[in-house]
Amino acid sequence: LSSDIDRLQDAVRAFAEARDWEQFHTPKNLAMALAAEAGELLEIFQWLTPEESRLEASESAFESARSEIADVLIYALRLTDVLQIDLVEAIEAKMQMNASRYPVQLAKGNAAKR
Amino acid sequence: LSSDIDRLQDAVRAFAEARDWEQFHTPKNLAMALAAEAGELLEIFQWLTPEESRLEASESAFESARSEIADVLIYALRLTDVLQIDLVEAIEAKMQMNASRYPVQLAKGNAAKR
Amino acid sequence: LSSDIDRLQDAVRAFAEARDWEQFHTPKNLAMALAAEAGELLEIFQWLTPEESRLEASESAFESARSEIADVLIYALRLTDVLQIDLVEAIEAKMQMNASRYPVQLAKGNAAKR
Amino acid sequence: LSSDIDRLQDAVRAFAEARDWEQFHTPKNLAMALAAEAGELLEIFQWLTPEESRLEASESAFESARSEIADVLIYALRLTDVLQIDLVEAIEAKMQMNASRYPVQLAKGNAAKR
Repeated sequence: LSSDIDRLQDAVRAFAEARDWEQFHTPKNLAMALAAEAGELLEIFQWLTPEESRLEASESAFESARSEIADVLIYALRLTDVLQIDLVEAIEAKMQMNASRYPVQLAKGNAAKR
Repeated sequence: LSSDIDRLQDAVRAFAEARDWEQFHTPKNLAMALAAEAGELLEIFQWLTPEESRLEASESAFESARSEIADVLIYALRLTDVLQIDLVEAIEAKMQMNASRYPVQLAKGNAAKR
Repeated sequence: LSSDIDRLQDAVRAFAEARDWEQFHTPKNLAMALAAEAGELLEIFQWLTPEESRLEASESAFESARSEIADVLIYALRLTDVLQIDLVEAIEAKMQMNASRYPVQLAKGNAAKR
Repeated sequence: LSSDIDRLQDAVRAFAEARDWEQFHTPKNLAMALAAEAGELLEIFQWLTPEESRLEASESAFESARSEIADVLIYALRLTDVLQIDLVEAIEAKMQMNASRYPVQLAKGNAAKR
């Protein structure tokens, strides 16, 4: 029984292979593509107030955000596949590191980087 | 039976709530944080050749890439949670759009944006 | 009589040449480095309110912002040098395009992208 | 006698003021806009080989790069104006720091971050 993530990663890989795009999909290029999509996501929010950024007043901005986040995730799925990184394990490992870096007592109400 | 993604999203939400970080986690701020992590990912690859970017020769660069990709994904999980976007549906919808935008015959061996 | 910009661009080029860094300074790599520095700039501001982002209350955040903006500009100077783009002309051409794209009457008080 | 940079900065400020855009131009928002433009710059280069990234074979990619770099610089001019950072001094200070961080003997032919 494969997970959602495995299934999506398989679909993204098949999409690239069908188009002979493995030649473009070096980790370097995929990192660039991911960051470029993150830039498009920023553009949606750049002039909005914190409250407006909830996108409750704009269906079209919401759809754009959904689409750009999907692009970021698609490249993240592809990049972790090419680098043979287990995405779930990577997230879990980072969450554990964050838990020790930001203990509740010290980090409560305070987002300062440690 | 919840999926990996639901489980991770719950963990990321609980982490923020335990630290009273909801106040910082507007969609605007989360988009910035995601893009900042994408920038850290770029930094790992910026001077590498396409071949070197496979990170087969550097355990420490590989670990850094794994960690930065995890950061991107953690913010993506949090952002989609705050915006109430179904991440799996968003990816599937975008994959379908990509399939019609990049038909195999036209896109074969050619990564030009359409 | 050379301008500030020419002088700075010469200094950035000399710095790279003295270190045999021309081999790393392809336009692709410089665009990545510029974007990575833009990501570090984002990180300074990501959790701040609009008002806090003026950095009037934090000398160290101000110094960090100054340093990251300088990094962005140094890579922009190097990238335009390598691509043989006249930076002043490029800015002036874009300002003219923006003036016709955002006529005062339509754009007044409204930052919507056109 | 004002320099190129002062003159461009004045023009960018006047452009914003004429459109009542000061309200949008918090440092936070300008940092986002700068990073979003850096993302558009990345997109031009993401699938290109190092050699292709010189853009000698594509007039239209060259024009796009020129336009996106101009956008990055326009936001950098505006951001330094709003934060009252002297851009030339900031670059000179960073170049001096880089000179001591990357001494020629250690950094020769080696772009590793220090």
